[in-house]
Amino acid sequence: MSGSSIGVLFKVTTWGESHGPATGAIVEGCPPGIDLIEEDVQKVLNKRKPGTIASSSPRKEEDVVKILSGTFQGKTTGTPISLIIQNTNVDSNAYEDIKDIFRPGHGDYTYFKKYGIRDYRGGGRASGRETAARVAAGAIAGKIISREGMEIIAYTKALGGIVIKLDRDGAKKISREDIAENSLMCPDKDAAREMEAKLEEARRSGDSLGGIVEIIVRRCPPGLGEPVFDKMDADLAKALMSIGTVKGVEIGAGFKVAEMTGSQANDPITPDGFLSNHAGGILAGITTGQEIVIRVACKPIASIAKVQQTINERGEPVEISIKGRHDVSVIPRIIPVCEVMVSIVLADHLLRQKAL
Amino acid sequence: MSGSSIGVLFKVTTWGESHGPATGAIVEGCPPGIDLIEEDVQKVLNKRKPGTIASSSPRKEEDVVKILSGTFQGKTTGTPISLIIQNTNVDSNAYEDIKDIFRPGHGDYTYFKKYGIRDYRGGGRASGRETAARVAAGAIAGKIISREGMEIIAYTKALGGIVIKLDRDGAKKISREDIAENSLMCPDKDAAREMEAKLEEARRSGDSLGGIVEIIVRRCPPGLGEPVFDKMDADLAKALMSIGTVKGVEIGAGFKVAEMTGSQANDPITPDGFLSNHAGGILAGITTGQEIVIRVACKPIASIAKVQQTINERGEPVEISIKGRHDVSVIPRIIPVCEVMVSIVLADHLLRQKAL
Amino acid sequence: MSGSSIGVLFKVTTWGESHGPATGAIVEGCPPGIDLIEEDVQKVLNKRKPGTIASSSPRKEEDVVKILSGTFQGKTTGTPISLIIQNTNVDSNAYEDIKDIFRPGHGDYTYFKKYGIRDYRGGGRASGRETAARVAAGAIAGKIISREGMEIIAYTKALGGIVIKLDRDGAKKISREDIAENSLMCPDKDAAREMEAKLEEARRSGDSLGGIVEIIVRRCPPGLGEPVFDKMDADLAKALMSIGTVKGVEIGAGFKVAEMTGSQANDPITPDGFLSNHAGGILAGITTGQEIVIRVACKPIASIAKVQQTINERGEPVEISIKGRHDVSVIPRIIPVCEVMVSIVLADHLLRQKAL
Amino acid sequence: MSGSSIGVLFKVTTWGESHGPATGAIVEGCPPGIDLIEEDVQKVLNKRKPGTIASSSPRKEEDVVKILSGTFQGKTTGTPISLIIQNTNVDSNAYEDIKDIFRPGHGDYTYFKKYGIRDYRGGGRASGRETAARVAAGAIAGKIISREGMEIIAYTKALGGIVIKLDRDGAKKISREDIAENSLMCPDKDAAREMEAKLEEARRSGDSLGGIVEIIVRRCPPGLGEPVFDKMDADLAKALMSIGTVKGVEIGAGFKVAEMTGSQANDPITPDGFLSNHAGGILAGITTGQEIVIRVACKPIASIAKVQQTINERGEPVEISIKGRHDVSVIPRIIPVCEVMVSIVLADHLLRQKAL
Repeated sequence: MSGSSIGVLFKVTTWGESHGPATGAIVEGCPPGIDLIEEDVQKVLNKRKPGTIASSSPRKEEDVVKILSGTFQGKTTGTPISLIIQNTNVDSNAYEDIKDIFRPGHGDYTYFKKYGIRDYRGGGRASGRETAARVAAGAIAGKIISREGMEIIAYTKALGGIVIKLDRDGAKKISREDIAENSLMCPDKDAAREMEAKLEEARRSGDSLGGIVEIIVRRCPPGLGEPVFDKMDADLAKALMSIGTVKGVEIGAGFKVAEMTGSQANDPITPDGFLSNHAGGILAGITTGQEIVIRVACKPIASIAKVQQTINERGEPVEISIKGRHDVSVIPRIIPVCEVMVSIVLADHLLRQKAL
Repeated sequence: MSGSSIGVLFKVTTWGESHGPATGAIVEGCPPGIDLIEEDVQKVLNKRKPGTIASSSPRKEEDVVKILSGTFQGKTTGTPISLIIQNTNVDSNAYEDIKDIFRPGHGDYTYFKKYGIRDYRGGGRASGRETAARVAAGAIAGKIISREGMEIIAYTKALGGIVIKLDRDGAKKISREDIAENSLMCPDKDAAREMEAKLEEARRSGDSLGGIVEIIVRRCPPGLGEPVFDKMDADLAKALMSIGTVKGVEIGAGFKVAEMTGSQANDPITPDGFLSNHAGGILAGITTGQEIVIRVACKPIASIAKVQQTINERGEPVEISIKGRHDVSVIPRIIPVCEVMVSIVLADHLLRQKAL
Repeated sequence: MSGSSIGVLFKVTTWGESHGPATGAIVEGCPPGIDLIEEDVQKVLNKRKPGTIASSSPRKEEDVVKILSGTFQGKTTGTPISLIIQNTNVDSNAYEDIKDIFRPGHGDYTYFKKYGIRDYRGGGRASGRETAARVAAGAIAGKIISREGMEIIAYTKALGGIVIKLDRDGAKKISREDIAENSLMCPDKDAAREMEAKLEEARRSGDSLGGIVEIIVRRCPPGLGEPVFDKMDADLAKALMSIGTVKGVEIGAGFKVAEMTGSQANDPITPDGFLSNHAGGILAGITTGQEIVIRVACKPIASIAKVQQTINERGEPVEISIKGRHDVSVIPRIIPVCEVMVSIVLADHLLRQKAL
Repeated sequence: MSGSSIGVLFKVTTWGESHGPATGAIVEGCPPGIDLIEEDVQKVLNKRKPGTIASSSPRKEEDVVKILSGTFQGKTTGTPISLIIQNTNVDSNAYEDIKDIFRPGHGDYTYFKKYGIRDYRGGGRASGRETAARVAAGAIAGKIISREGMEIIAYTKALGGIVIKLDRDGAKKISREDIAENSLMCPDKDAAREMEAKLEEARRSGDSLGGIVEIIVRRCPPGLGEPVFDKMDADLAKALMSIGTVKGVEIGAGFKVAEMTGSQANDPITPDGFLSNHAGGILAGITTGQEIVIRVACKPIASIAKVQQTINERGEPVEISIKGRHDVSVIPRIIPVCEVMVSIVLADHLLRQKAL
């Protein structure tokens, strides 16, 4: 059954395969009267574009978004917004050779087991390309939450084992400008340089690298999140874990809480606010008004040139070396994807709170 | 709006406050013709009962579950199953003194911000007591998935900084019996002894401890999970993060993937199966047929005797020392809760796959 | 899968079988801070009670509702409200004789075909008793919409072929008091007398009667209803058709529109409002601010003393004469059920509009 | 919030405005491995095309559907199917004159009240054009139910006050060929001739006509429909009432049940099946295996040349005479729309039953 929608009041449904004619999204529940033109969406979509940095593939994705419904004279009308991105620059021939082979680390095997049929070209629906539709839809969510004064900052926290040096207070001061300074969207310049070297090394050896993205939400009002299952952190965890590359999500102190005592972990409250933020801005599933702090672990890109052991659809052993135009790391291109997933969850919960 | 339901086809809705007359759950979508009597549910519910171990509170919760609908002559009928657990042994007087005080680390502050009104007695809806209803409902999910041959094993991976020693192969061999051997549900006896000592120390100092629970699903068929948002790992992350105490969720290698290369992280496939399981049994959001491996980080219990700084509803600073019958750690009582949340997600996805 | 819930933001889930221990409902999404005590619900529930009139059964249903969650100190808290009504005065022995026989006009046959198992006692889940839970839940919806100034009036429009005489203007002036004047909730006294005679005649011949209920919503604000599938009239039609007895639903001029021309059917608009209301208060699925006018056709009660032809579970022909305590018509007891179903839909759409 | 989706497991979401660049639908939950090419959808879509008959407008809608996702090599893959129909032959100039005027019988007034903004060109989202997307999506539902042997027949039952003469047995024998014989899709030739005359008369006088469509589902298996709110008849009522033109829905004997006694209305059961079908193939919300019989009342088309009284956005009285290319009756073009709405509900419930 259907699993291609997310959100209750602000709902995003994506569709499309990597090498089909197009990919797109329907945004339902966007309030009427919001300024929205294609350029607003295009700007965000461009952030996902492959750049010239070491981690990204030479493939040119010219993603041009069109708005097909839901706006009139530059404003949203309250009806569903249909977004479409044509798939251009697609070369499916590269996949003919491996059309019956399950690439390790990819969804080839599981899609085949689930559906008994699969579009093998470019990963089909399981391709990272699906995130283009998310980003387009999330750009609209971003407009809703920024209307309320919220801001989302996301950056490279770690890549290939290199971790940025930044105390919590440091994170508080990071600006979009700081992140934009280097192509890895990493606020620590020294770390960024080391990461670039690691990427180059991986590329040369036909391998790929994993990393960690940190996402900060600023000026989120308190009171968002719905007990008991649709907690803010639960919905964020789902939204982020639904990105193909993500294998772990943590909020605030995250896995470190396992080593803390209650007197360390509890954030004291004073008339001037909380004295710390181990909770990451969420208590009992509801936002506190502090910064929301989230980290996600991204696995290395599965498509590598190095020879790997696998099987084909007939169960026979084969060796595979994946050529073609692949990134060395999902970082930094995954960062805008993380941002929009958080935007979508926040926009949804904002509307849910309005209906209270 | 409503956030008290989880699941699409196998749907659980819980209700109830800690000090209200009762708590309970509705289970919708349970297939007809499954053997189900109250004792089946009671047995699972008993696992959540406070024990005699160092980590648990002296409060006696006599949780007795009643089935009010949805079964006939010992079998499910396909109609909603209503489960109720009376709240007994409740003493609300203890909360009169702190009724306008926001306990640090609790939902007091956020519920007040969200709703403008809150049942302050025992944490109201935000109480850990709400998990009793989850466990009762999850017991039914457990019957559905064990019918398909699946088994869930969950145990203490870490507590108060003590981590069990167990290689991945070790985890493969852990049996329910191994876990039951000690009161902490910890398969490493030596670590368990150290944990007990840590717990005793924390209790004496009026503090509490966090930990990590690992959950293993065995014999899960391949093909479960719905791209792209209702991925198996996304739904598991949400279900587990919706437990009040959880601040992080990871699948398979989890956060370790951030330091791995693609050639390390990808699990090679052979005619005899996968050679490793860094994916944790899930690829592209769909189960591979391998063991599903999940870890969750649990924060220390927020109610501690140590004096803490906070404010009251009028914004005035106050000090608080929380007396009363509180556990020192959510471990091991949270373990059956983790198990049932995983059961609910699996049961739901099993039914979703049947509808394909 | 689950079909026991209705509503998106204001959501009602009912559970319970006719002869099980209890029946009940969960109300999710009720805004916090609304005055609510058991008596508020009980008062509405009492309207559904069998009376002393000719149409009603001598069975005494002492329906006493309990609120188990979601309120604190007489106010709603925003969390799920659990309502329970114990099943008392239940005698299942009467059903032993017909436990493997499919009663004509009942759900016996279809439940058996669907689930392969059925609780034959008193119709199980398909019993009219299920509506008690709807009425209890709907009482809360009623509080929400009356807060906004709305009023729902429902009455007997026809019974056993006797139709009330009342021009549309007449309907505009009907008050709750007019309806309460006779036991059939019929605003036309002369018609009511004829209906009573018809009922008595049907009772004597061991038969039952159908009828029509008209429901008027006053002071509904314009703008409620969601294009294109969740139109106000679409959701009302579903809610009302979900009552077991209802075989037809019409809005405004209803089936009469089939014989009208556009110039007759269109309601002219003037600066002082609409000049007619053939639309029944809904245009393009959205309320106009006029009265919402709905009629539902109720079939005769299926349980009759007259001998009927049927089969048993083995497919053998049998004759059946249903003894026991049965009403002669669902009217007037179905009237409060119709009212609450409309209340639930309106409350849901009110909240949906708030989230816009 | 969002109301543009229908169905739980087989889910259709439509988008698009009458004079926007395109309109379309996403179909989620379609099982994998079903043969599906654009021509399959186009064939059904063509049935909705304006014809040469008296009731239809001279506007030429060249609706060409494209499948953008969800199929591979002529088969469905289990992923969302995106359907798009470009809006061609659109002339928005005609609407400039009435852009601030609320046309009587249209959604102009209510959309404005709801959203505060509206796309006035051609009715925007409230246009009958939206049904093109439904028909395209419903064509896929049709494939699913015909795989199970079901057949849907829909025809003109009444138009402009002329009712076809056909006993119930007659309806049993109507074939698609009988209906196709005349352009009104009316199985009674004599009635069809009278209807044509009525249509011509209405056209000449600048007016429009209402009618009744009857829909018959043959060979529907027993057991479909979900108690208690998602009953088959409840979901059919919603689906059909969601068509803009529909003001009433009845099942089986429909409103006639109001005049029947129980002994007349109950359908006797014999070893060879039911002896009558007043229930219209649905008992207690679940299909019996008999023919499902539904009738819907369609209002006259609201756009008429006759002068009507109305107001503009500033509340000033104006007169309006709607010129342009409008049909005289929604019949017969609404008939394929009714068919697909029934197909969608049946496909959804088929999948829901599979998940039981």
